[in-house]
Amino acid sequence: MPSMVHTLPASSTSDPSGAVACRPMAGTTHVFQAPKGTRDFPPDVMAVRRHIEQAWRSASIRHGFDEIDGPTFEHLDLYTVKSGDGIVSELFSFRRSGGDTDYALRPEFTPTLARMAAAKGKSLSIPTKWFAMPDLFRAERPQKGRLREHRQWNVDVLGVAGPEADAEVIAVAVAGLRGLGLGPDDIRVRISHRGAAAGMLTALGVPAERIADAFALVDRREKIPADAFATQASELGLDAAAVRRLDDIATCRRPASTPPTDLAEEHNLPPDSVADLTALSTELDRRGLLPFCDWDLGIVRGLAYYTGTVWEIHDAEGTFRAIAGGGRYDQLVELFGGPTVPACGFGMGDVVLALLLAKRSLLGDTTASLLPRPDVFLVSSGDEDAEALLVPMATSLRDLGLHTRHTWKATRNIGKQLKEAAANRARTAVILGDELKGGAVVVKDLDSGEQHDVPLADLPAWLPRRLAGADR
Amino acid sequence: MPSMVHTLPASSTSDPSGAVACRPMAGTTHVFQAPKGTRDFPPDVMAVRRHIEQAWRSASIRHGFDEIDGPTFEHLDLYTVKSGDGIVSELFSFRRSGGDTDYALRPEFTPTLARMAAAKGKSLSIPTKWFAMPDLFRAERPQKGRLREHRQWNVDVLGVAGPEADAEVIAVAVAGLRGLGLGPDDIRVRISHRGAAAGMLTALGVPAERIADAFALVDRREKIPADAFATQASELGLDAAAVRRLDDIATCRRPASTPPTDLAEEHNLPPDSVADLTALSTELDRRGLLPFCDWDLGIVRGLAYYTGTVWEIHDAEGTFRAIAGGGRYDQLVELFGGPTVPACGFGMGDVVLALLLAKRSLLGDTTASLLPRPDVFLVSSGDEDAEALLVPMATSLRDLGLHTRHTWKATRNIGKQLKEAAANRARTAVILGDELKGGAVVVKDLDSGEQHDVPLADLPAWLPRRLAGADR
Repeated sequence: MPSMVHTLPASSTSDPSGAVACRPMAGTTHVFQAPKGTRDFPPDVMAVRRHIEQAWRSASIRHGFDEIDGPTFEHLDLYTVKSGDGIVSELFSFRRSGGDTDYALRPEFTPTLARMAAAKGKSLSIPTKWFAMPDLFRAERPQKGRLREHRQWNVDVLGVAGPEADAEVIAVAVAGLRGLGLGPDDIRVRISHRGAAAGMLTALGVPAERIADAFALVDRREKIPADAFATQASELGLDAAAVRRLDDIATCRRPASTPPTDLAEEHNLPPDSVADLTALSTELDRRGLLPFCDWDLGIVRGLAYYTGTVWEIHDAEGTFRAIAGGGRYDQLVELFGGPTVPACGFGMGDVVLALLLAKRSLLGDTTASLLPRPDVFLVSSGDEDAEALLVPMATSLRDLGLHTRHTWKATRNIGKQLKEAAANRARTAVILGDELKGGAVVVKDLDSGEQHDVPLADLPAWLPRRLAGADR
Repeated sequence: MPSMVHTLPASSTSDPSGAVACRPMAGTTHVFQAPKGTRDFPPDVMAVRRHIEQAWRSASIRHGFDEIDGPTFEHLDLYTVKSGDGIVSELFSFRRSGGDTDYALRPEFTPTLARMAAAKGKSLSIPTKWFAMPDLFRAERPQKGRLREHRQWNVDVLGVAGPEADAEVIAVAVAGLRGLGLGPDDIRVRISHRGAAAGMLTALGVPAERIADAFALVDRREKIPADAFATQASELGLDAAAVRRLDDIATCRRPASTPPTDLAEEHNLPPDSVADLTALSTELDRRGLLPFCDWDLGIVRGLAYYTGTVWEIHDAEGTFRAIAGGGRYDQLVELFGGPTVPACGFGMGDVVLALLLAKRSLLGDTTASLLPRPDVFLVSSGDEDAEALLVPMATSLRDLGLHTRHTWKATRNIGKQLKEAAANRARTAVILGDELKGGAVVVKDLDSGEQHDVPLADLPAWLPRRLAGADR
């Protein structure tokens, strides 16, 4: 860890060209840190990020989604048009020196996606299945599982109004998590539906014009004291019995194998309020997803743009924040000037997910075990012919596609080089030793310990075949 | 293309909360665009980026480099400490709303790398071989091949003072470009050496204290008129003959197979001024790199932190800006408070490279040909048993790791679905048709046209084997 946190001197805050004040004095040792709430990724940490991204990408591509991306910053008003000006304080916004255009680091990807879909206009394919893995930014105080910069997987289906699209994006999310080793005992998809929840609230006596307020209250339920919840619920027109029922419904979670009509009956809700969940249930079942899912009418999702199914993925024990959140947002593309397009999708960040994977011991014995393993570690006896061969052989093996390393130390002690090979987790060592006089090298399998003398001329064909075989 | 460019109304420039002024009127159709100098990446464009990144990553890993990354923005003074305050106008800098810390979007990766190396202090491995593929940002007017946001490959060796490290990073750069199909007729590595160039300038009569100014002048040579060059050169103490010799040397390019001592002789330079280039030449030769390289003492590199070998990669015809630039920077880690560590590396952006690949027709017939090909396209006859099987079969095949698609259209016309499969560039079609009555499906190889009846129960084993075989 750096020995000194670098901060601006207080005097610089009133200096418009603050940079002048924060230049170190000549000769001062000056240790910099990453900005608060952001991360450095040294190789072992980067390997975790790549491991997660690889699972995300693989699940996306298997399900037939095409990857997209957009700029890291957008026009500021791309965010204010949807969320109002209140969002500005949560954004990192800026202008170019001397410029008059306001930009913001992207806090979420959906507005970029909606903008790109809107720009396609009538030429947008139906359906459009897109995924992205952008870096996103929040100018908030960092908290556990919530940083100022994180990577987020986004998966969206545009153009399909039916529940098969909702089920498909849930299938991709679950496939991504299963690819990382998580099963139904580790993660739960908690599903609600804005329509079903609205039906429930109406049945309890909430007037139509207060439904949005009631959603906001249910969303806050776990964050405010019970009496504050009751007071605010009564202000929505609910009597004490209805408040208790509201709380019952919002806290009731049932396995998705429960027919939604049972849920409706249990809570005296109109049966047609759960028709969409029943249709979704069929689509989830076809994809083998019911064991991963729960009905949970307490899931609201803060964002105002959701219009139908809404869902979150949480760790099964409920230790962390949500791992992912998504739902249907049928009006969003239109809001950005595009055609009317039904749409659904989700976002899944890397921060909470990495915490859960670490807790479940799913990142290997050490995080270094996620680093790419060298195929070959070349070992030289130090003899003249071995030394002359070392770098050209490394070059040839790399040209064949093999991940090849050798020591950069002065030592030519074979035992020490084999130790370095093992520390690098190399799969094989190719030893340029006495056998060179007979035109051969020794290939040692560093997992099994097995050794083979291989003629130099055969090595380029023999080694890749051997390594491919060892994979099976 | 969007029909309307979104710009801020001029009145908003004097409004500190400019966001208010740029909200669209209710009911207005409002088409947003990506900010000037940034890019949207729809699937075909994203596929090009991934193609390039894949070649970069593969070359890095084969050569034993570990991937790292840092934050997208850093403390502003991380950049001013090295480059002075003049750089501030070239940066996108910002503060958090109400905060007093200045940040900047990273314009290059080397300061982040030096900061990360400095933070490791004495525990930094020798050598440290790192690569990264960050997004970088410049607040300049966008030009051809130079945007406000681009992706850049960075490869660095820390801890090795000898020319084997310089040759190794050049080898990685060339391997990355060869992985994209570029050969020595397409790209040239143009190599110089600050020491050799300083020796040349000294021999011409430039006093020691004006060497830095002379470098700056050589760097500007192609950008200023000949007479301005001559005037400024004479101000450095050069007579007319020396100015002509300076120009000769700076414009002289020789294949790297030419011994550097020949070059010295040709230009009446002291032979020991090219000793480092001679040592580098041996290391390039061991790696088979000489056919890609030229000696070019006109290469200076603008950045002040280079201390030894400096090089650029250009397209052979010299049509574009430099594709990559790099060199040795032995004092940089120390500048950021770390130990004294010799270091060298390079950066290669994606923008010029993509222009060259397109010009050389190395991006496929259409950019869509770089999109991942579906392994399977499922086709349903529309019969009840086929329809019941379609989604569960897609789910099983995806669980096996196969990229699986099916139509989302209402049509169940088999010919139309096969056409969609071909448009998706699927490798096979699995047809759920009349054969289902006998418990089989038809698998059609969409490249060869070959068809097989495969029993349903055999498909999960048969299809991946067939697809793997088709790869060979």
